[in-house]
Amino acid sequence: MTLINVFTVEPSRQQQLVDLLIHATETAMRHVPGFISANIHRSLDGKKVVNYAQWRSVEDFEAMQKNPAAKPHMEQAAALAEFEPGLYEVVDTQFAAGPNV
Amino acid sequence: MTLINVFTVEPSRQQQLVDLLIHATETAMRHVPGFISANIHRSLDGKKVVNYAQWRSVEDFEAMQKNPAAKPHMEQAAALAEFEPGLYEVVDTQFAAGPNV
Repeated sequence: MTLINVFTVEPSRQQQLVDLLIHATETAMRHVPGFISANIHRSLDGKKVVNYAQWRSVEDFEAMQKNPAAKPHMEQAAALAEFEPGLYEVVDTQFAAGPNV
Repeated sequence: MTLINVFTVEPSRQQQLVDLLIHATETAMRHVPGFISANIHRSLDGKKVVNYAQWRSVEDFEAMQKNPAAKPHMEQAAALAEFEPGLYEVVDTQFAAGPNV
């Protein structure tokens, strides 16, 4: 299952949010049952941060949201930015038709 | 460079949008210079579709947007859904601390 969480942030606070999400993933999320991987992205315009993460199941992700180890990190993120998490499945993957020139 | 394009769609039209994006990637995007890969996702709640794609550079992505081969596909998507494309760079990748159990 793929979690795509889009954070909308003041550009002056984008780096602070990135640092917070990296720290939260390192110290809490990656130790939670069912967590597989996370990729943190910053938008080139400074206004967004996206966490693109893989979880084993929806149940594991929902259990994390109730986990006391995760809560302070989520509250800190909520104080810095608005966010809209979505749960997805990959339906198609495609690569360049030839050398990408 | 990572493109994350979040489409908001009527759940009754989610599958139609997914089919359109797969077809557009197959017939147009993957032949465009600078395209590397695309992953199409559908949200479990039916309300979103996300295209998570890699491009060689911002310039290649911008050139695609002016490419006549891409235009009809983008217009068809715009008729079905609202979308908000964002250009990103990956700043951090992390994996589970141990076996994910």
